[in-house]
Amino acid sequence: MNVLLTGFEPFGGASVNPSWEAVRLVPGVRAVQVPCVFGEALEHLRAAVLEHDPSVIVCVGQAGGRADMTVERVAVNLNDARIPDNAGQQPIDEPVVRGGPAAYFATLPVKACVAAARAAAVPASVSQSAGTFVCNHLFYGLMHLIATELPGVRGGFVHVPFAPEQTLGRSEPSMPVAMAAAALTAIVTAAVSVADDLRLVGGSLH
Amino acid sequence: MNVLLTGFEPFGGASVNPSWEAVRLVPGVRAVQVPCVFGEALEHLRAAVLEHDPSVIVCVGQAGGRADMTVERVAVNLNDARIPDNAGQQPIDEPVVRGGPAAYFATLPVKACVAAARAAAVPASVSQSAGTFVCNHLFYGLMHLIATELPGVRGGFVHVPFAPEQTLGRSEPSMPVAMAAAALTAIVTAAVSVADDLRLVGGSLH
Amino acid sequence: MNVLLTGFEPFGGASVNPSWEAVRLVPGVRAVQVPCVFGEALEHLRAAVLEHDPSVIVCVGQAGGRADMTVERVAVNLNDARIPDNAGQQPIDEPVVRGGPAAYFATLPVKACVAAARAAAVPASVSQSAGTFVCNHLFYGLMHLIATELPGVRGGFVHVPFAPEQTLGRSEPSMPVAMAAAALTAIVTAAVSVADDLRLVGGSLH
Amino acid sequence: MNVLLTGFEPFGGASVNPSWEAVRLVPGVRAVQVPCVFGEALEHLRAAVLEHDPSVIVCVGQAGGRADMTVERVAVNLNDARIPDNAGQQPIDEPVVRGGPAAYFATLPVKACVAAARAAAVPASVSQSAGTFVCNHLFYGLMHLIATELPGVRGGFVHVPFAPEQTLGRSEPSMPVAMAAAALTAIVTAAVSVADDLRLVGGSLH
Repeated sequence: MNVLLTGFEPFGGASVNPSWEAVRLVPGVRAVQVPCVFGEALEHLRAAVLEHDPSVIVCVGQAGGRADMTVERVAVNLNDARIPDNAGQQPIDEPVVRGGPAAYFATLPVKACVAAARAAAVPASVSQSAGTFVCNHLFYGLMHLIATELPGVRGGFVHVPFAPEQTLGRSEPSMPVAMAAAALTAIVTAAVSVADDLRLVGGSLH
Repeated sequence: MNVLLTGFEPFGGASVNPSWEAVRLVPGVRAVQVPCVFGEALEHLRAAVLEHDPSVIVCVGQAGGRADMTVERVAVNLNDARIPDNAGQQPIDEPVVRGGPAAYFATLPVKACVAAARAAAVPASVSQSAGTFVCNHLFYGLMHLIATELPGVRGGFVHVPFAPEQTLGRSEPSMPVAMAAAALTAIVTAAVSVADDLRLVGGSLH
Repeated sequence: MNVLLTGFEPFGGASVNPSWEAVRLVPGVRAVQVPCVFGEALEHLRAAVLEHDPSVIVCVGQAGGRADMTVERVAVNLNDARIPDNAGQQPIDEPVVRGGPAAYFATLPVKACVAAARAAAVPASVSQSAGTFVCNHLFYGLMHLIATELPGVRGGFVHVPFAPEQTLGRSEPSMPVAMAAAALTAIVTAAVSVADDLRLVGGSLH
Repeated sequence: MNVLLTGFEPFGGASVNPSWEAVRLVPGVRAVQVPCVFGEALEHLRAAVLEHDPSVIVCVGQAGGRADMTVERVAVNLNDARIPDNAGQQPIDEPVVRGGPAAYFATLPVKACVAAARAAAVPASVSQSAGTFVCNHLFYGLMHLIATELPGVRGGFVHVPFAPEQTLGRSEPSMPVAMAAAALTAIVTAAVSVADDLRLVGGSLH
């Protein structure tokens, strides 16, 4: 099957983005870098989809401060930027798609993806929120694209922790890029091969 | 205006639930306790709505571990219980309402509610996820009820931290119940009086 | 018995220091504010001791980010400043007292102090480190003064969390000043009345 | 130079201890496993010292929950166990060495060790407390042994985070054992080669 992975360029003053560094290490997939810019990120995604015609699409972003790989479950129709994006835009409480539904669920088998990452010895969990910055923007745009134009395509979003070199003096959680790539490889395999998601505990009390 | 607040009974082995303790201290509102049980919580909510005919409804729950009042923005159509509820039910990956939309946004002015709590000197922020347990279940059920049967009613959900007596030996964040009640009072006032939400920074990077 | 409490002036750009705000609310004690300056803090302490001739001395400081009252157990002979003090000094790896021992233990009954705060319904715990900034500097100086000049005086240090007004937009733990004062009152009572410390679990794995 | 590293056996119900797994990967040193038992740990250390006659000794332990390598600065004369050790002992507020000083500072160049780990691309920082369990017990016992019997020997303690396989379902920070070993290798090199410690910011506010 044809698999497309996207990773982001660096943002917020960083010189590296572990989402892109990890994505480019995953074997057997199309890896595309997208800008950390509202709007433009979606244009790059659409162009890559047209070019590669994938049946599985996983967008990947950095979640600084998280300790494990997180498979996102819900994309919300909301741009609400705490900091400016790489083009200086800072939308507040605007929809990703005017008139779109409030949210989409990922069509990846999220519990099976988490189980696959753990089976590859990488800490992972389900996340109930991808935030309201460009990551969620891309995730929502992907799921809207699938819902409206790409029936049958599986799509979702995965967040990776900081790379160790980003936290050298900060005592924050990190994960080596090679380990994040191993988890992504396992997640892609699950996304391609698992028909029905697993019924595993993985919710959040709040 | 007629305002209905709900708080939860204790759960997870606790002997107190600060959501109910705070709700009952808010002046000038109808305060109703609901069980921490999937399904039953919604039945109690519906009965209270029928009895009191409110124009503003705020459901309140405990978010143990959070440090501030959190005004929830998104209710998702998902029951995914990490622990059993008070009736021993533990649904995994089931919808709250079969056939309902993936999510609803709160119709409270969430940024104005946060600003009102802070103006009352209580730490507060917007939250992008109410989890997947009974709190989110009640929140989604409320918003579905409003969307399908109660046009014009404002509704939303607020999480309160642990009360101090719940954390005596645990070094976890807490907030006195009286302070949570002061924030809820300010939030209710904003919910009643603010026509258009404020345009304030309050999103999440992830 | 004569009890002396000290609290700090604001530092690090803050406009308030909850240690002083809490200390001044404790009834029946001498409350003295000390500057957040290496050296000067100790001079103010010594002057207050000479003036009031206390038999119990508890210095109090702010520990931003901690969630509960922490009774410090160990003062170390080390000034190692992460930020400049209020006079612009930033000592790195210097002793508080040249030739002094590596550390002193508090002579307060620390476990009984923690138990007393909890009995007053305030979350509290033992802390194994008061850091290496002006708080530890004052704590070490106090214990050295007691060891060398004030036989029989009980002394120690307590850290208080941020006040809520310091964390309004930050989602960090806080504690109302009145609650911190109630804990300090209970701690002072224990310090005055408990002959032998309680044998309670309160250590740290690391 | 002759370098001795010690790591601990598993404890607290775990099946692995990353301190031992990392220590055994460091090239060119003597690696010895010690039991997680008050008293016995020190006996094993003394036996290893007699056997290998090292000039640098670094004891290593697990600090579950920490995100980076932490080079400990202060060993305190206190056993205060939150949980039983592997022999079922749970001392409360007892000295490691009756009549010993309240604390010893590590004689490793701690700032240079942290800088060396970071130069090897591994997140690291100075820690002001090794807790009050068997890690601190061993650290204090080591420093007391050096102070009383091994003049000129450099000694200290380093804590390593959980290994990833210990946190698969827990969303807690972790570090691959090979990365911890790379940091230990760099730390040992600094301990052997750096005459005077570096003057770098690395203290704690509290």
